Formats: sequence, C-alpha cells, structure tokens
Amino acid sequence: MSEIIVQKFGGTSVGSVERIDAVADIIKNASQSNKIVVVVSAMAGETNKLVNLAKNFSENPNKREFDALVATGETISSALLAMALHSKGLKAKSYSASQISMRTTDSFSKARILDVDAKKILEVLEEDTIPIITGFQGITETGDVTTLGRGGSDTTAVAIAAQVKAKRCDIYTDVDGIFTTDPKIVPNAKKLDSITMEEMLELAGQGAKVIQTRAVEFANKYNVPVRVLSSFNNGNGTLISLKEDTMENALVSGIASQKNQVKFTLHGVGDIPGTAFKILGPISDADVEVDVIVQNVSVDGKTDFTFTVSSEDQETVNSVIEDIKEDVEYRDLIVNSDIAKVSLVGVGMRSQAGVASRAFKALSEKDVNIQIICTSEIKITMVIDESLVDKAVQVLHEEFELDK
Amino acid sequence: MSEIIVQKFGGTSVGSVERIDAVADIIKNASQSNKIVVVVSAMAGETNKLVNLAKNFSENPNKREFDALVATGETISSALLAMALHSKGLKAKSYSASQISMRTTDSFSKARILDVDAKKILEVLEEDTIPIITGFQGITETGDVTTLGRGGSDTTAVAIAAQVKAKRCDIYTDVDGIFTTDPKIVPNAKKLDSITMEEMLELAGQGAKVIQTRAVEFANKYNVPVRVLSSFNNGNGTLISLKEDTMENALVSGIASQKNQVKFTLHGVGDIPGTAFKILGPISDADVEVDVIVQNVSVDGKTDFTFTVSSEDQETVNSVIEDIKEDVEYRDLIVNSDIAKVSLVGVGMRSQAGVASRAFKALSEKDVNIQIICTSEIKITMVIDESLVDKAVQVLHEEFELDK
Repeated sequence: MSEIIVQKFGGTSVGSVERIDAVADIIKNASQSNKIVVVVSAMAGETNKLVNLAKNFSENPNKREFDALVATGETISSALLAMALHSKGLKAKSYSASQISMRTTDSFSKARILDVDAKKILEVLEEDTIPIITGFQGITETGDVTTLGRGGSDTTAVAIAAQVKAKRCDIYTDVDGIFTTDPKIVPNAKKLDSITMEEMLELAGQGAKVIQTRAVEFANKYNVPVRVLSSFNNGNGTLISLKEDTMENALVSGIASQKNQVKFTLHGVGDIPGTAFKILGPISDADVEVDVIVQNVSVDGKTDFTFTVSSEDQETVNSVIEDIKEDVEYRDLIVNSDIAKVSLVGVGMRSQAGVASRAFKALSEKDVNIQIICTSEIKITMVIDESLVDKAVQVLHEEFELDK
Repeated sequence: MSEIIVQKFGGTSVGSVERIDAVADIIKNASQSNKIVVVVSAMAGETNKLVNLAKNFSENPNKREFDALVATGETISSALLAMALHSKGLKAKSYSASQISMRTTDSFSKARILDVDAKKILEVLEEDTIPIITGFQGITETGDVTTLGRGGSDTTAVAIAAQVKAKRCDIYTDVDGIFTTDPKIVPNAKKLDSITMEEMLELAGQGAKVIQTRAVEFANKYNVPVRVLSSFNNGNGTLISLKEDTMENALVSGIASQKNQVKFTLHGVGDIPGTAFKILGPISDADVEVDVIVQNVSVDGKTDFTFTVSSEDQETVNSVIEDIKEDVEYRDLIVNSDIAKVSLVGVGMRSQAGVASRAFKALSEKDVNIQIICTSEIKITMVIDESLVDKAVQVLHEEFELDK
C-alpha cells in the first residue's frame, strides 16, 4: 500500500483560479504514487479582506466572532480546490476543522491544536478520495470556531501528518526553499537542499517566514519530515531533516532577521527568585509570545530584565506590565520599538568556537552597534537598530561565505 | 418574562457595512421589549460572487462542495452583525448551522430542514445574549454542509421561530410588505396590512418573491405568525395572519405573475392509472418542483399531460423525460418556454362564484389568450404568452379594483 503524504498549499499558491488549477495538477501528479491529504490556506488577500470588513465595526473586534469570520477564507479555498480536482477526474472532498474535529484550545486567534480525528481522514483515503482540509481553523470543545494565528496552516498540516503517520509533509509556498538568508537582502543567498530540524526551529522563530515556528516544533516533536518547496517552480525545495549529520560541516547554515519588534526593559528589578516568572507569567497568560529574554548580572541586588515581543503585542504587554506594577518593583520601564533582530544559525557552532566573536568583529567594522546578545548552542541572536538590519545581514552573509 | 421574536434580515438588508449597522439598530430597538433571535442572509452579491468562483472550475460543480462554498456567505454576515451589535453595547454571538444542529436532508442545494437544536438557542437567550444564526445553511447527519436553496433563509427563520415557540417571525426585506400585485407592473398597487396564510401560500408560490413558499408552509404548519416588513423604511409591513376572518370580504386579495417558466406537454399519453406518477415521480426525485399540472379529459383512451417548471430546471426535466421514454408511451413531447403564469388569489373566491369568468372576460377583451387554466379553491392560475404578462396583470388589477 502506498504511503501518505500531506501537501500544504499557502495563500499565494491558491491566490487565483489559475493558481488553484495549477495546484490541482501538482496534487494529481503526486496522487499517482502516494495517498495524498491536502491542507489549504485562504486565497491570498482573502483573509485581509475579511479583517478589513471587521474593522468597520471595531478596531478590536470580539475574538470569537473574528475567528468565525476569517475562518471562512479556508472554507472557500478548500471547496474550490475540491472542484478543481473533480474537473481533473479525481475524487476529492473538502473538510472544515469542525468536520474532522480539529480540536484546539479556546484561545481565539491564537488557538493551539489539541487533537484531530485521524480516523475520519483515513476513512476518506480508504474511499480513494483526497481529503482537502482547511488549514488555520480549529474548533473548541463547545463547538466555537477558532483560528491558529497567521501561518497556522503549516501547523495544521504537520499536526495532521503526525496523526495519519504520513511519510512526509510538503509545505508548498511561493519560494523555492530555505535560503542562507533573505534573497531580498542578499541577492546571492543560496538555497539549502536540507537543513536540520533544530536549525530550522531557530531560523523559523527568527523570521525566516517560510514556515511557522510551531509547525516545526510539531514536526520535531512527532518526527515528521517536512519539505518546503515552491508551487510555482519545479524543484526539490529544502528538506527539513530529522538527522543532524546532513549538515555536519556547516558552521553557519543561515542568517535570519526580523523587524517589527519591541524591546521592553525593566530597569532595576530585584534579583530575587521568582522575578522572571512574575513578569513573564502574566504576559504568557495574555497569549503573547516572548522572544529574546536577557537578564544581566546583578549589581547591588538589582538587575535589568529585557525581553522582546512582536510589535502587534506592544499594547497588550504595556497593560500587563501596568497590572503587575504592585507585584514587581522596578525603577524604570524602557520601551524601544526601533529595533530588529539578526540571528546566525548553525549546528556547526556547537563544536566550533569563535563564531560569535567573528560575527561581532565583522559588524563592528561596519559600525553596526549590538544592543543585546543572546546565544544558544546553535544560534546567536543580536538585537540592533532597525535601520541597520539589512546591512548587518549582508555583512554576516559575506563574512561566513554563505554564497559559496 | 418577555416573549421571543425571530427577526430575519435578507441580503439587501445586510448588503453593506452601513446596512448592517442599520440592522443592528433595529435589533437593539426590538431587544428592549422582547427576546430577539436573529437569522441572517449573506450580504447581497456575496452568494453570486461565490457561485461565479465555482463556475471557473465547472458549469455544474459538485453539489457538496458548492454548498460548503456558498454557505460561507452567511457565516460572514452573521459574524459581522454580531460585531455591529457589540459596538452598540449588546451581547451577541453568531452561530452556524452546524453549531445549532440545523439538521437537513442530504439533498444538497435544495436541502429540507429536519430538526434544529432549540435548547442551544434558548440557552444563549438565557445568558441575555442575542443569537445571530446563519440562514440558508444546514448540516446533514454525517456533518456535511448543505444549503436550502435561494430564499432558504426565510425557512430557517420560521423553522427556528416554530422550535423556540416565538410569538412572531419578522421577515425584514427591501419592500414595505405584500402588495396587491407587483408595483413595478401596476404603479398604484396597494400594500396589504394583513393577508391570510393560505392566500400567502398561493401568492408566494406564484412569485410574489417577498417570502419563500416553503417558509410560509412551515409557518402554516407550526402556526407561526409571520410579518413581512422593510429594513429600509419604517412601517408595520404585512402580517401573514393565522386567522382567515381578517380578509373575509376580499374577493381577490392579490395578483401574482411569474416569468421564466417552461411548459411541457406529453401529447397522447395513455389515460390509465399510474401515468401521472410515472411522469412526476422521477421529476420529483430529481428535486424539480413541478408547478401547474393539467390533464385534459381523455379522447379514445389518450390524453394530454401538461406541467410547468422553472426555466432553470428545463434541462433536468428534458433528461428525465428521455429516461422514462420506455415506461411512458406518448405521441409527442411539446416544450414551450415562452410562457408565463398569472394568478388571482383570494379567500373570498371560495364563497363567491363568477370570479373566474369575470377574469377570462376581461382578458379576452384585451386580446390576451389563455393557454391553460387551473383553479383551486382560492386561486385561479392562467398560463399565457410571456410577452403578455404585464398587460394581463394590469387588466386584472383594474378589473378587481385592487387599487381602491
């Protein structure tokens, strides 16, 4: 019996009638040799159109209604794709989150997947029918419609791949694969044939933008090999591999950058146990994902606690910090939204010293000041001035010879 | 405790952001004195837009997918209307057919309502929240999304009104109520303050176009008083009354006309038991609603069997008749699509003779030839040449002094 492959198509891949037709050809081709499960995003532009409709009534619409509204984008594209497959002689049926019991938390607009009814999907496959599943959508225990947040369709695809024990999850998008850095910033950036899951996790979180972080986390957790490739051009894309050794010798695999960040510094907080939790607990409860977290060494029992979040969460974080004022004493709150992050990622860093200092030296020679440094085993993240980010990426790409 | 009123808003009533806002005001006003349940259609134009998207893939798209696609129109308008109510300080929640278990048959695009979870709706009302329910949508036992056919939202509203034991179902539309005939044909047509359910049933079926026939049937069956009124202008609309006596003295209440009809005549069929069923059974199985059915007296054991259907069903009926050729012998099949129907409706006809002959006389004086006549207790239907229909309506409106 042939194995299952999950194919996920993003918004630009199904952005028009012609694109949907092209995607149907890709699916038809793949269905010759494997059982295919399809996950689909809304047609590009559709979600924004719905968001703008909602904004007519409120700048901050009720999240339950907002999710019910924007989830229709995927329902539309999945039904259209099923029709396109019928026109090519294939059997296909669209399924909404509700119809395959894609259960999530009730955290509207940022829901997390809890479970999915693999049995239903497998039954559809048994009937030689291709299930076309709405990405991005979920359903709570009480039947409310949720969404997983932007890019959530990737997570839908990987979660389904894990549950149906697919041999691979193919994420079709509008780029040819994962590059050493953003080709818009460095024109001779190179496409990687493969990358380790760990490296991808670090890259995705830093805005490689090709695939959603949580999707990679899921893939990592459930051992689902993921391939990122283009629905516009032929090519094998980039395989996000489960095995580390594929990249054994690469010192630095890629460089990621991310704008639209805000840096919060609580200056002069008490360096006592529980402080970090008192600050980050309520922020996490407000469903804000905190990224870089840095706490300097303490001087006289006081320290500085800094973290970055996405710009869209700035207001939420501001009000959370206002609420915890009583609980967490600090001297000043410093908020800076003119910042960006640049990261070097590479499994090779583990065993080779000197990468960090080489990066710092290259940047300083080009007058790029580094505000925050935060390193992990396979990643070095630097927070710099937003206006310098493209320059920093170019400098680092050249320094580590990623175009070679 | 205040009583429940179901308010249904059609596509033009929610056709724009401004209209949705105006509808929210109507609901807010009504909610001061009653518990309100809202049923909403898709924004005008939205359903057609989705239908056209589907047509890119097939002239005759798979009905399951088609229904999943077009049902999104109501999901969008219901969520937006909930947001509009929030912005006016009211509590409201949108519900899809799936969420209130609006069960239907699995006859896609023409599904019939089987049951609805009134308990869920009543629970929402208990929380002082206005449920905004998607009209037109349904769900099969296996969880497939269905639609009720054009105008189906009226039926949704009446079905819900019946189940929650509402004191009235208000159908908001873009006209001020039910008129003695189409004001576009007869400018001095008069709005009726009330009309009996029976008369309405006859009028609706003949294309009064204000409210769907099946909705009136439901209202009749479950004794739900229905009011038809405008969401654009103030006014009390027309009450479709349960009691006959309101119209006791009216000889003719209204005149309806309907174009886009096709007449099928099977000439020379055997006048033997079972012929009518052999012809109409398969047509009904194909979900085509047959309207006027006439069978003439037989001559030499042969008769002519004539019926009319909506133009959109012409092809389906053609192929059904082709299929039953073996089973039903006939000499010729005559198909005429240049026809229209004109009907006089009035409870008063029951007890007063002479209405029919008066109508036939008036028409013949103006050279309107009548092809078929078919009468019931409270209705006289005439099939005439399509080009003469406006003239016929004007003649009859004057003859029965409906402008007085």
